[in-house]
Amino acid sequence: MIMKYSGDYKWEDVAVLAYKETGTNFKSITRQVLFDGLGDLPCQLRYFEVQTGGYSSLERHHHVHFVMILRGAGQVFLGNHIYSVTEKDVITIPSQTWHQFRANAESPLGFLCLVNVERDKVQLPTGDDLIELRKDSKIAAFIKS
Amino acid sequence: MIMKYSGDYKWEDVAVLAYKETGTNFKSITRQVLFDGLGDLPCQLRYFEVQTGGYSSLERHHHVHFVMILRGAGQVFLGNHIYSVTEKDVITIPSQTWHQFRANAESPLGFLCLVNVERDKVQLPTGDDLIELRKDSKIAAFIKS
Repeated sequence: MIMKYSGDYKWEDVAVLAYKETGTNFKSITRQVLFDGLGDLPCQLRYFEVQTGGYSSLERHHHVHFVMILRGAGQVFLGNHIYSVTEKDVITIPSQTWHQFRANAESPLGFLCLVNVERDKVQLPTGDDLIELRKDSKIAAFIKS
Repeated sequence: MIMKYSGDYKWEDVAVLAYKETGTNFKSITRQVLFDGLGDLPCQLRYFEVQTGGYSSLERHHHVHFVMILRGAGQVFLGNHIYSVTEKDVITIPSQTWHQFRANAESPLGFLCLVNVERDKVQLPTGDDLIELRKDSKIAAFIKS
């Protein structure tokens, strides 16, 4: 019932996994599952770490994310904005909202991400979605897909 | 959708609340609500901070807690054991399991605690429960009620 932190953003007996099983639309991310649902809590809590220069996939989905930054600093594209984020900042990603995380050049970006155990698959942007997203030059310069 | 951390374990526009509305079976704790359920995530995430010498109520309930220590160090009585806990340790509190958190003498103990938005009320120990719990001398020396 106790899972000890073992330093360097790893936990005892918790496997460091690939961010996703497939895909090339992301770079340099690991995943650790810290909670996988119990009793009346139908939630999974993951710790993701984006290495320097890495980024998560540009995606949206029906399910909601709750995120807290635990390590380092980076940026997140969320909705129509790009935000700088750092340790202990909290980010709520509503349903069907495009989002992408990126680590800063000087530091990794580690964060907790809470989801429902049962959730829909992510949607990646179509060509039309990318045309629409790239109408904003700041967003065009930020997103990678 | 972004809630910035403002330092000293506080977040912008997040109220620092009393741990509980009523009761005297706890000491020196504050509560901040960082997430209060959205879409398919029926969860509430709170940050609790137990000051030096403080402790949470000795309680059990049907609902499950997921906890991550964010600040300082302390001890937790959980089930039949007393564990030392420190930053980033993870604690899962199963249904109907007696538990109590205490800050160390030298530091506060701050932690994230995840619960279902809809949950049962806590049960405090009866006289008979306390007699049973105190049969273990280590537990008897630890718990406060």
